[in-house]
Amino acid sequence: MSQIQRKENPSIALPVRSLSNIYFDPVHKLIKIGDKKSQRHYLNVGHTRKFMQTMLVASECKKIIDQGVTTSIRDLYYALKRTIEGAKENTFEGQEESDPVLEDLESALNLLREELHLKADRKGYMAGPMILEDTGDRINCARMGSSGWAIPSDVEPGIIRFLECNAKFVLLIEKDAVWQRLNEDKFWKIQHCLIITGKGQPARGCRRLINRLHNELHLPIYVLADADPWGYYIYSVIKQGSINLSFLSDRLGTPEARFIGLTTKDVTEYGISSNVTIKLNKGDQKRIKEMLKYVWFKPKDWQQELRRMLKAGYKLELEALSSKGIKFISEKYLPDKIRRQDFLP
Amino acid sequence: MSQIQRKENPSIALPVRSLSNIYFDPVHKLIKIGDKKSQRHYLNVGHTRKFMQTMLVASECKKIIDQGVTTSIRDLYYALKRTIEGAKENTFEGQEESDPVLEDLESALNLLREELHLKADRKGYMAGPMILEDTGDRINCARMGSSGWAIPSDVEPGIIRFLECNAKFVLLIEKDAVWQRLNEDKFWKIQHCLIITGKGQPARGCRRLINRLHNELHLPIYVLADADPWGYYIYSVIKQGSINLSFLSDRLGTPEARFIGLTTKDVTEYGISSNVTIKLNKGDQKRIKEMLKYVWFKPKDWQQELRRMLKAGYKLELEALSSKGIKFISEKYLPDKIRRQDFLP
Repeated sequence: MSQIQRKENPSIALPVRSLSNIYFDPVHKLIKIGDKKSQRHYLNVGHTRKFMQTMLVASECKKIIDQGVTTSIRDLYYALKRTIEGAKENTFEGQEESDPVLEDLESALNLLREELHLKADRKGYMAGPMILEDTGDRINCARMGSSGWAIPSDVEPGIIRFLECNAKFVLLIEKDAVWQRLNEDKFWKIQHCLIITGKGQPARGCRRLINRLHNELHLPIYVLADADPWGYYIYSVIKQGSINLSFLSDRLGTPEARFIGLTTKDVTEYGISSNVTIKLNKGDQKRIKEMLKYVWFKPKDWQQELRRMLKAGYKLELEALSSKGIKFISEKYLPDKIRRQDFLP
Repeated sequence: MSQIQRKENPSIALPVRSLSNIYFDPVHKLIKIGDKKSQRHYLNVGHTRKFMQTMLVASECKKIIDQGVTTSIRDLYYALKRTIEGAKENTFEGQEESDPVLEDLESALNLLREELHLKADRKGYMAGPMILEDTGDRINCARMGSSGWAIPSDVEPGIIRFLECNAKFVLLIEKDAVWQRLNEDKFWKIQHCLIITGKGQPARGCRRLINRLHNELHLPIYVLADADPWGYYIYSVIKQGSINLSFLSDRLGTPEARFIGLTTKDVTEYGISSNVTIKLNKGDQKRIKEMLKYVWFKPKDWQQELRRMLKAGYKLELEALSSKGIKFISEKYLPDKIRRQDFLP
């Protein structure tokens, strides 16, 4: 507004979100976005369309916040898609145009999309000795039957309040089948912990929940994933944040998380049969070599693990532990690792 | 055993699960499997491996049932994978070998895998005026906050018991974002219904739950999906069952389900802008032409809808309704359709 009153070309300053402005912060141990900004001008043929889109998304966010409702990023796109009056041009051609504009706004305002009343995809479940409040309803995570509490996309303090917690740590599990095994065995009751699964790469809600559980309740976070490049990547995203969402690392990343397993070392230590290991393919080998160079995999123990995997030539999934018996993971492997505090950094 | 004692070649009779033995039952309005059986012999070079695998899976199922535990089909595979002593052959090379054997067993025994203590992938959520019991825990689906009750993979009466229900119908919603919209607007409270999302094609647990809600509590089932071939296919699977799981149609299918929307007719009836429709691609057109021939899309109203879609040349997603306002779906579209009982058969 003030720019228009001063008869200037209206513009918005946005953090540069390309790789050139992203770095690993060794103090906070998080992937962070730098200080570089770019200007998006209204009166610039190359910028006008994006400027218009940014204004549309921002004003729609204001509208839904004022109405006190929330919506999805897909609905946001549909609510804004239209042909501009007097022109043949559409405001947006596809959601791939509105999503990055929203990320621009999140980074410019330093706000999560959930705070802009937009919901991301959700997945993941939690069980354990904790009582919480979800939009006014009291949820006892120790009485959620076989399914657990479904983690919503928005877990900000205004939506999810932690009321009581008797857990001593959090176990984040890559796979839902393993989570179900541990839930059935009441692992969380025996070990006084919260068990969470992200069903693969955790959604934002799940990552934010872990961040809050650690920062507000001071619970240690242990990550249980496959011994393969994808499992190790999932761990790194929980720990350092991701390049894509670097501007949110302080709220989505938990640098103090520890990796409990699986590792290729476990194969010999727990006598896992070579029948259930899987041969590394070329993509895996390439990925491991890349990971060896990442700052966050520089600690000695990780370098050893990655080199050991390359040398052994195999990876393995959590289900491989089932070859030692169905309850081996809940009765032997995990209690043993936790007792010995045998984690990767 | 008796075959061995009689010194016969041991064999198992299995229902033929290929298309040649699958038909649409016009009385029950379900996709069913026929009476054709095939014999799987131990002493037949072409059968021996599969015979051995069938026995292994069956005996592992017996073991986990005896132990009173459940497991996943992936864990089942890992628990059984090994090199056969004295040979270089593995029992299973991959899960793609153990999964079909399990389906053979399900169809031969006429039992759900959940009854064999095996868990399928789970997804989907439910909210509304219902109290149920899940493995001993009391769950009030009207007090589940923003996330709803997560539907487990096993919803058999031994696991999930319906305690109290004040719902008048069930609304099954293809998309979670729409479910979240309706949950936020407390649609289930205003309309006295259960709202369920399957997050795309519903998993077995979700389909079985709908079947139970209809058959045991006599609740009408309304399906809300995209106006596209995929949305209409989702509806048909809920209604008639699927070809793959034809041997389970009576427990997974609900022939009395009705389709509430979206339809291409809605575009004119509710004045939806052409900006938010999506052009049919060649795959869509081919699919619609196939669907026109299916027995279960033969009713006049479906033929009209499919032909209208072909002629109009577009499809549309549920989110298209957001172009009329964020609460249009919960405050206008759905109440209107339900009041007028405007469903496709």
